[in-house]
Order: sequence, then structure tokens, then C-alpha cells
Amino acid sequence: MDTEQFTIPLWLELTAVGLGGIQGALFASGFRGERRLDLLGVAIIGTVMGLGGGLIRDLMLGLPPASLQSEWYLPVVVVAAFIGMLLAAPLQRVNAVIVGLDALVIGLFGAFGTSKALSLGVPIIPSIFVGICSAVGGGILRDMLMSLPVSIMHVGSLYAVAAGAGCAVLAILHLFDVPIFISGLIAVAVTTVIRWLAVIFDVSLPEQRMLYRRKVATETGLIPIVRR
Amino acid sequence: MDTEQFTIPLWLELTAVGLGGIQGALFASGFRGERRLDLLGVAIIGTVMGLGGGLIRDLMLGLPPASLQSEWYLPVVVVAAFIGMLLAAPLQRVNAVIVGLDALVIGLFGAFGTSKALSLGVPIIPSIFVGICSAVGGGILRDMLMSLPVSIMHVGSLYAVAAGAGCAVLAILHLFDVPIFISGLIAVAVTTVIRWLAVIFDVSLPEQRMLYRRKVATETGLIPIVRR
Amino acid sequence: MDTEQFTIPLWLELTAVGLGGIQGALFASGFRGERRLDLLGVAIIGTVMGLGGGLIRDLMLGLPPASLQSEWYLPVVVVAAFIGMLLAAPLQRVNAVIVGLDALVIGLFGAFGTSKALSLGVPIIPSIFVGICSAVGGGILRDMLMSLPVSIMHVGSLYAVAAGAGCAVLAILHLFDVPIFISGLIAVAVTTVIRWLAVIFDVSLPEQRMLYRRKVATETGLIPIVRR
Repeated sequence: MDTEQFTIPLWLELTAVGLGGIQGALFASGFRGERRLDLLGVAIIGTVMGLGGGLIRDLMLGLPPASLQSEWYLPVVVVAAFIGMLLAAPLQRVNAVIVGLDALVIGLFGAFGTSKALSLGVPIIPSIFVGICSAVGGGILRDMLMSLPVSIMHVGSLYAVAAGAGCAVLAILHLFDVPIFISGLIAVAVTTVIRWLAVIFDVSLPEQRMLYRRKVATETGLIPIVRR
Repeated sequence: MDTEQFTIPLWLELTAVGLGGIQGALFASGFRGERRLDLLGVAIIGTVMGLGGGLIRDLMLGLPPASLQSEWYLPVVVVAAFIGMLLAAPLQRVNAVIVGLDALVIGLFGAFGTSKALSLGVPIIPSIFVGICSAVGGGILRDMLMSLPVSIMHVGSLYAVAAGAGCAVLAILHLFDVPIFISGLIAVAVTTVIRWLAVIFDVSLPEQRMLYRRKVATETGLIPIVRR
Repeated sequence: MDTEQFTIPLWLELTAVGLGGIQGALFASGFRGERRLDLLGVAIIGTVMGLGGGLIRDLMLGLPPASLQSEWYLPVVVVAAFIGMLLAAPLQRVNAVIVGLDALVIGLFGAFGTSKALSLGVPIIPSIFVGICSAVGGGILRDMLMSLPVSIMHVGSLYAVAAGAGCAVLAILHLFDVPIFISGLIAVAVTTVIRWLAVIFDVSLPEQRMLYRRKVATETGLIPIVRR
């Protein structure tokens, strides 16, 4: 095991953090009615999506969060969140962008989580678990902060499965001493493709949207729904 | 203080983790309507109930979570969750089993939390607090993930009191140098019996069930309720 | 940097913890209907408000929570919560007291968080972030435990801004080697005054109250509201 596994390059982690921030802000900007967030609320959700996964990973590994050891993470994620807000209006209906970004972000965070855990000597199965929690943790925190049903519980099967598949592939390739650069790339690709396929074949996102609609509708009376 | 206090035997912690996984899956399988969980959702809740308490304990003690230092925890809790799912159909109406298991699990996690804290030199009162948080933490995480009202806040008085009593007994016996094996056994018994008595005398569970009914009813319109 | 920055005096942290406990209990006592909490529920919320911010701060800094290293924190916060309950009846309509206390508490926790982070060598921007999370973390945990919409997301702009301003002032003064006693005092004053002004000019609290009313109303049917 060489030392390159012990640190995720800063530029790469900041890229994932920035993409997470953009994705979070795009998601948060989409709400209307009672759940509408102000500027700061959108920035908070962007920050949570950008930094949440890494924070959970480091807590699980018993490390002080990497994002608090450097000046870079917070400015990057906040700027990314504001970019996400600006893009929200033109991209609102381009759901493909939001979902595609999301798939990439969970792939990256999953790969970071599993490889960091492995490099610290955590056994294989817990390392995969740390990767999954890094990948989906930001979204869970987001849903809790926004008082939304935690999406991974209801429609998230393929979400968590996609993350888990990528992390497992990385861990298995690690057993065969495949360099982390290659195994990480394959892991991100596996997660992203599974997630995309799930959305293309309509497995999860529409149901998720419906769930939100229904919940918002019940609470605000803003959206007419047919009671089942 | 002898060294046996410094480690909870792996087989014993895995037993508690497994029972927690079964209990979580039984609980999660019971939901219908909008809150119905798919297979993976039930497995997640089982995992949360099996590992959540220990995770919270180790975070509070500033340790890397024990469940991520060994290959055993995650397979055990996942298999336990699937056993819980298979048992859910025959046991659905046997609430006594779910409640009984739950009482035992909070007793075990409480005793583990307090004894681990004491063995690390944490003072008495915070050690009892760590035990209580270990005992009830899994349930709080479960309720948050399932978007349920956090049961300990509304009907959980005797739930937390039961956990606290067991942990306090353990801490007091520890002051008198009672061996951890004996004090732990007494602590688990105290918690379990108080919790059972609370349920038998109808203090908490029915109200809890009603609360869920009402909440589910309000959100889905599936269950007819009389509005107060 | 002198050593006095490395430790927050115990009496000062206990004062903040106690005020947080009182404030939490006052807040929690105000609920009626389905959300009404029993004695223990109010004590839990008081504890969460008193200890939550410090717990989050220490987790973010990779330290074992200070509140579990001493016998003092838990008795102080529990006694404070009971004082809060006793004061709840006479103070119920004196919202100014609840809001004023709250402003002071977030000021104190923000200053503690930022100064503790700085003293550990955390860079400036993350130190400010740790302060903000310490200041608002207790309230977020409270809202999640009470199944309330997380107030900071909806009406909390000036809440988080007030905390952030105080923490930023402290961090900037720290750059100029201003003694922590003075910079901390100024930081607490900045946060408290901004928060008070926000409330006086009606920016946030009433909306927050309305949000709760609406949410409680939707779920319980207890409060008549006009559906928008």
C-alpha cells in the first residue's frame, strides 16, 4: 500500500465539495410555498451537501473533519452554492443536470470514504460502509434540515445500492492491489452509471418528487392532490 | 479497576447488535401506507437500531466507533435485520416480543455505554448520561430517518427513565467495586423490568401507537380519525 | 497567543450551559396540544439546548466533549431546565425574556466555539464556522427532537447571521492579538445586539411563531387557521 492512498488530493476533494454545493443549491432552490428557502437557507443546504459527506466520514473514522483543517473548503462550497442558485432558474426544468450531478457527487464521496477508510487500516466491510455513509450522508442531513421525508428511506434503494456497488468495487480492486487512481475511477463510474440507469428507467426520482409533492400538499394545501 | 472492564466481550456486543437489528426490522416492517419501507429501508432501520447506540457512545467518548474496527458487526446486523423481516409476518401481532426485545436491547446498550465510559475514567454522572444516550440513541436516529415524531420526547418518559435507572445502578455498584459482570447483569435486569412494567401497566406503548396512527392519518388520509 | 485562550473558564461555560438549559425549558414548556411535552421531555430539551452546542463544537474539533469530562455540566443543565420550567408559567407571555436569553446564549456559544477552534490552530474561516455551528447547533437538535421545522432554515437568516458576525469579529480581533477576554466580550455583544435588533424590528420571531402555529394546526386541527 503506497502513501498516495493516505491522502485524497485537495483539488479533487474540493471539486467534489464544489459539485456537492452546486447540487445542493439547485435542489434547495426548487422549493416553493411553505418550504421555500431564503438565500441563506439555500447556502446552508449547499454547504451541507458539499461538506456533510466528508464530515460524517471523518467522524466515523475518528478524525477531525478534513474540511476544518484548511481555509479552502468553506469558501469553495459557499461560492459553489451561489453558482447553484444562479443556475437554478435556467436549469430548473433540466432535471437531468441535477440528477447527473448528484450521481457524480455520491460516486466521488463514496470513493473518497472507502479509500480513506482502507488507507487507515479499517477492515473491508466497514470501509464499504463508511463509503456508503459518506455518499448518502449529505442527503440525509439535507432532508432532516428541510423537514423532508428522508429520501433514501422511501425511494432511495437504488441510491444506496449505487453507492454501495461503487464502494464494494473499490474495496475489491484494493484487495488486488489495483492503484487507487484506477480503482477510484472505476468506482465512481460504477456508482454514477447505476444511478443514472435507475433514473432513466424511472425507478426512483419521479416517485421521490411525488412524495415531496404529496407531503408539501398535505401541509400547505397549496398543491391540489387526489387523496388516495 | 481490573482490565476486564476495558473491553466489552465481542460476542456479547454482537449479541446486542443482533437483537437490535432484529428489533429494528420488526418495528420497520410494521408500517403500511405512505411510510411503508422497501427491503432496503427495513435493513437500514435494522442497522441503525443495531449499531446506532454504540456509534453514539463511541462518538461521545471520542473513540473511533467499535463497530468499524471489526468485520463482524455489519454482517451480523444485516443478517439480523433479515431475520427480523422474516419474523415480522408471524410476529406482527405479538407486540410483547417487539417490546420485550426492545427492553432487553436498551438494557444492554445502556450497560455497555456506562461501563465503557467508567472504564475510560469518565466521571460518574457523565458515564450514566453516556449509557442513557447509547440506550435511546438508536431509537432517536430511527425516528428521524423514518420522519416519525421522536418517540422518546412524547411518550418515552419511562423509556429514558428505565435506561437511566439501569445505568445509575451500574455506576453505583461500580463505586463499591462490584465486578462488572454482576453489576452489568443487574443493570440490564433493572432496565428491562422497569420497561416491561411500564408497558404492562399500559403507561407508554399504546399512547405511542396512537401518536403514530394520528400522524400517519393526518399525512396520508389512510386511517380514519376523529379530529379533536 | 497566550495559554488563557486554550481553556474556557469552567464557571463561564457552566453559565452559558445553565442559560441554555433555562432557555430550552422555557421554549419547550410553551407547547400545547399534540406537541405538549411531559416533565422529562422538557428536561431533555433543556439539556439539548444547554449541552448541544458544546457537543457539536467538540465533535467538529475532534475532541471528546468537554461536558463529559466533568461532573458539573449535567447537574447544572438539569437544574437549569427545572428552573426554566418553574419560570415558564409566569414568563410565558414575556417573549422578550426568551428571545433575549436566546440571543445571549448563541453569542456565548459562538464565542466559545470560535475561540476554542482558534486556540487549537484551526484556520480562521473554519474557526468562524465552528463558532456558528456551536451557536445554532443546539437549536437544530432541539427542532429535530421536537419534530418541528428546523427554524434556522426558514426564518433563521438573521439568527445565523448574528452568530456569524460575532464569530467573525472575534476571529478578526484575534488576528490583531486582542486578548480573548475583550474580543470575546465584543463578539458576544455583536451577536446579541444584532439578534435583538432583528427581533425588535420584527424580522424573524413572529414568522417563526406563525410557522409553528401553522404546522401544529395542520397536524392537530387544534388551532383554526385560514388555508392559503
